[in-house]
Amino acid sequence: MQATWASPYRLPPPSQKRVHTVHIGLIGLGKMGFNMRERMRNGGIEVTGFDRNPDVTDVASVDDLIAALPTPRLVWVMVPSGAITDAVVTELGEKLSPGDMVIDGGNSRFTEDQKHAAALAEKSIRFADCGVSGGVWGLQNGYGLMAGGADEDIELAMPVFDALRPEGERADSFVHVGGVGAGHYAKMVHNGIEYGLMQAYAEGYELLAAKDIVKDLPGTFRAWQKGTVVRSWLLDLMVKALDEDPGLASIDDYVEDSGEGRWTVEEAIANAVPAPAITAALFARFASREDNSPAMKMVSALRHQFGGHATRPAN
Amino acid sequence: MQATWASPYRLPPPSQKRVHTVHIGLIGLGKMGFNMRERMRNGGIEVTGFDRNPDVTDVASVDDLIAALPTPRLVWVMVPSGAITDAVVTELGEKLSPGDMVIDGGNSRFTEDQKHAAALAEKSIRFADCGVSGGVWGLQNGYGLMAGGADEDIELAMPVFDALRPEGERADSFVHVGGVGAGHYAKMVHNGIEYGLMQAYAEGYELLAAKDIVKDLPGTFRAWQKGTVVRSWLLDLMVKALDEDPGLASIDDYVEDSGEGRWTVEEAIANAVPAPAITAALFARFASREDNSPAMKMVSALRHQFGGHATRPAN
Amino acid sequence: MQATWASPYRLPPPSQKRVHTVHIGLIGLGKMGFNMRERMRNGGIEVTGFDRNPDVTDVASVDDLIAALPTPRLVWVMVPSGAITDAVVTELGEKLSPGDMVIDGGNSRFTEDQKHAAALAEKSIRFADCGVSGGVWGLQNGYGLMAGGADEDIELAMPVFDALRPEGERADSFVHVGGVGAGHYAKMVHNGIEYGLMQAYAEGYELLAAKDIVKDLPGTFRAWQKGTVVRSWLLDLMVKALDEDPGLASIDDYVEDSGEGRWTVEEAIANAVPAPAITAALFARFASREDNSPAMKMVSALRHQFGGHATRPAN
Amino acid sequence: MQATWASPYRLPPPSQKRVHTVHIGLIGLGKMGFNMRERMRNGGIEVTGFDRNPDVTDVASVDDLIAALPTPRLVWVMVPSGAITDAVVTELGEKLSPGDMVIDGGNSRFTEDQKHAAALAEKSIRFADCGVSGGVWGLQNGYGLMAGGADEDIELAMPVFDALRPEGERADSFVHVGGVGAGHYAKMVHNGIEYGLMQAYAEGYELLAAKDIVKDLPGTFRAWQKGTVVRSWLLDLMVKALDEDPGLASIDDYVEDSGEGRWTVEEAIANAVPAPAITAALFARFASREDNSPAMKMVSALRHQFGGHATRPAN
Repeated sequence: MQATWASPYRLPPPSQKRVHTVHIGLIGLGKMGFNMRERMRNGGIEVTGFDRNPDVTDVASVDDLIAALPTPRLVWVMVPSGAITDAVVTELGEKLSPGDMVIDGGNSRFTEDQKHAAALAEKSIRFADCGVSGGVWGLQNGYGLMAGGADEDIELAMPVFDALRPEGERADSFVHVGGVGAGHYAKMVHNGIEYGLMQAYAEGYELLAAKDIVKDLPGTFRAWQKGTVVRSWLLDLMVKALDEDPGLASIDDYVEDSGEGRWTVEEAIANAVPAPAITAALFARFASREDNSPAMKMVSALRHQFGGHATRPAN
Repeated sequence: MQATWASPYRLPPPSQKRVHTVHIGLIGLGKMGFNMRERMRNGGIEVTGFDRNPDVTDVASVDDLIAALPTPRLVWVMVPSGAITDAVVTELGEKLSPGDMVIDGGNSRFTEDQKHAAALAEKSIRFADCGVSGGVWGLQNGYGLMAGGADEDIELAMPVFDALRPEGERADSFVHVGGVGAGHYAKMVHNGIEYGLMQAYAEGYELLAAKDIVKDLPGTFRAWQKGTVVRSWLLDLMVKALDEDPGLASIDDYVEDSGEGRWTVEEAIANAVPAPAITAALFARFASREDNSPAMKMVSALRHQFGGHATRPAN
Repeated sequence: MQATWASPYRLPPPSQKRVHTVHIGLIGLGKMGFNMRERMRNGGIEVTGFDRNPDVTDVASVDDLIAALPTPRLVWVMVPSGAITDAVVTELGEKLSPGDMVIDGGNSRFTEDQKHAAALAEKSIRFADCGVSGGVWGLQNGYGLMAGGADEDIELAMPVFDALRPEGERADSFVHVGGVGAGHYAKMVHNGIEYGLMQAYAEGYELLAAKDIVKDLPGTFRAWQKGTVVRSWLLDLMVKALDEDPGLASIDDYVEDSGEGRWTVEEAIANAVPAPAITAALFARFASREDNSPAMKMVSALRHQFGGHATRPAN
Repeated sequence: MQATWASPYRLPPPSQKRVHTVHIGLIGLGKMGFNMRERMRNGGIEVTGFDRNPDVTDVASVDDLIAALPTPRLVWVMVPSGAITDAVVTELGEKLSPGDMVIDGGNSRFTEDQKHAAALAEKSIRFADCGVSGGVWGLQNGYGLMAGGADEDIELAMPVFDALRPEGERADSFVHVGGVGAGHYAKMVHNGIEYGLMQAYAEGYELLAAKDIVKDLPGTFRAWQKGTVVRSWLLDLMVKALDEDPGLASIDDYVEDSGEGRWTVEEAIANAVPAPAITAALFARFASREDNSPAMKMVSALRHQFGGHATRPAN
């Protein structure tokens, strides 16, 4: 069914008609949440947003947000994973009413979802998780969404999902992966793949940069955008990055990692799945942040011990 | 310049006008060459093709092909890299005339190009190399092209490049990478990246498949096609593959490799460039072809020796 | 100080005088515990052992073991890590008296130690952990020991440690690594290193086996035993394995892994330490156990999709 | 046959009687050759050494060396691999007589041996290759030797091999691996393994260093020397290095690599042998030498592009 799989490279089909009458609460208006509020509103969803930053918030408090929503309430949490998400979900568990529903759209570990769902279920509050991909471009392009939860809960939030995702076939940008946690599990794997993809392109970039006979490095990436096997959105972004800073001269090679890459490798281990490329990407980031690797100091020390090879003095 | 980098995801700009009066010889009409002949012809290029397979060839011999072409002749070689390309280029060196030009569009190692160019130059025959990406879809979508050679030689063949590549901005699908060999060097790196990308997606696929909470594995890949950070043409092809065979049940896990992946790692070594993700992809293919790994037998033997751990008897 | 570091390759110095009057309980008389009981006894320690296997046990029950020991009691636990260790420690916590001491000598995760120590501390029972290396050869050669716990607790058990370790300088085979858990942490890292060492030798073995010009593969390993940089006990064991089965023809390439390799990589991730060689060893074991890798099926499927490359049918 | 494999850890058997009447020429008296001359002499071999360094040479020129040797001459070449070895062997080919013999004991690539043997054979000069391991400790401990060549050639040089290797069973420290090149092939693999071993220990070192609960890091390595599964000569050297500089504070983490590690990975690729641990070790060295990785700059740039994540400015 070529029509389906090739869709990103053709014009989208005529838009599905969307008449949304949903009113949602959105907690967290940072890089992601801010744009999502706008895209939801553009899609006809009524949104009351809360953020501790007074410049962007619609209401002054979580209490005000809860008071503003019709019942049963729908609250989307879009805050940093870990302690902050935990605190927000806990607060919502204390303040929402039976029949209300919480969606965690952040980058929580899937095991957290199962914990949160159980805690909220004790108060008859519903819970679903949704992995959201698309970065800062999601406002313009729509977000790819991976949801986990009970069928009826996912169905309830569908108008919101439809507003967030790109126009066109729902199946091309939204999936109900499975029960609670499944959405974040899929998002975790998505991000693990993303690590591997970025690393592969980056290694190729360095190989091209290393070779004198390559006279047009940015042009080579640009020419891969249409027609080649490696064409992708990440490639388009590399072209954009090289447009803006041809030699990436302004950027340091220090690369952060967030939780999903680590969790992906941990899940690979837990499930005895070899994941050497994704793990290589994670370790390359770790190494990028080391000024003075104890391991490599030891290798240098050993070479000196057995072979008399010179070491470099630490500086 | 967003207009440029985002182009694959928008409609192409109005087609550049193409009036081609070129007549080219094409040697090799296999999976790639056959389709390229058709796309060249669709683009207004006159093509005389030769292949040893009488069902597809236009002429009976290389001599006939040479006789059919206007001078100075332009001959595109599209045969398997290595010995066969070598033989064809050698034959052309013997039979073409000064001022004629050979383009190697196959997957030759870049070092071969430099050898071929030097040999042909002794007879005043021109040489350029061109990496061609796009696989069996190139006929329909156009090919991504990476050319190496002298400016005037590349310019001469530009009508052919324009016919082969997708419609739209030339820079999005064609690059003159550098001198002779540079095109194939870029194609080699492109394929190395391709190995890494495929491995990353495949590891993610296995991780999703390993987890019970994932209830819709094909649907998850499908939903990544629009909006997510990992959207790409390879992803589209995975969706297509899972459409055709949802569990990939009909396919063995034995994976071949061709030269470019190996050469990429060799170049990484030669240039002291860490390439762990691409190399992981290559080694995963090697391992996929081993029924009985001597290395792992040794690890099993060692565990038995020091710890008394049971080994599995060979079967 | 050459005298210290070179000691394994010279005769041990005159034995330190050992007069032990300790009576210890030992729970778990499997591959490790059985031999350890004998070595303890050879070293002058009185040992009462318990195992569910009536052929090897000294007493009929844990209760009998506890009854047989002088107070304050010293009980060494040498059972499989995880649930069984947990159950034994819990039982001891219920049955021992304040001032008694438990040593976990199995392969528990260091985080378990901290949990066990806390639980026992509530009953004023002392706890230490001790990583034990040496495998089935420990009876003959002595064991390498890595202990974690409070100074006074480690001191108390020192006669037992001295009996278990090889003759010679204590510092060459025993270390008090740190507080509770530190011994098992060091043992975990030791085993992670062991994975990497075995994999490196095994890769070299396969490379030698792959090359026709190598006419004496077992002889090559044998000749590395003295003089070369790669000489080691694991190498000696490889020589022994190749003596017993020159082509390892009787052994399958299926390799198990136990917890420590996985935990080592998880700790690498938790501490942002690149550990590519150890991780490669772990993943090679995972791959050795896969008959039909979903990941590699996907790579094969992709090659077919874009390039028309043949796949192998599943069998 | 435990007597054989365990020999490094017991006293050597009584020395085989060695009465050597050989007179050899030795070209190259650097870190390795200088010590080898002394060990040869200690073993009863008459040695005439030549080096460009007047402080260490016995004769003023290669011509003088040749003049000093009885015929048929035996000349051991111990100079840096590559161009210098090539030049020395070429010079010897011009100056030696039919029936003379050259042994290349340096770290030449095995393919070079086959080239050198063929060139010398045209002048009826014999050639053998010998991988020599043991580093600066070989003078004291003896060298591990891996020889390649014709049976009669290896036999001829046996008194020299016997003088160089440690006392004890010949098979424990000397192997005739196969024909010309086989000795260096085995040495190449030996060094590849060495890379992997060092990396595994180094990763473990860093993991121990990363953990607060490890209070005695040097002591932990020291305690692994006797009894544990990971005991080895490299471990002994690590203990020595940590004795001399407990935190390795004086050493930079920049690590060189020489040819053998690269060649090992290239051979792995050429023979389709997965070698992930050895390759990880090689890439870790490459990465240790990069101040500003283009690949990681690109990963950072991409994270900024899609997610708005901050990059670090280059400094």
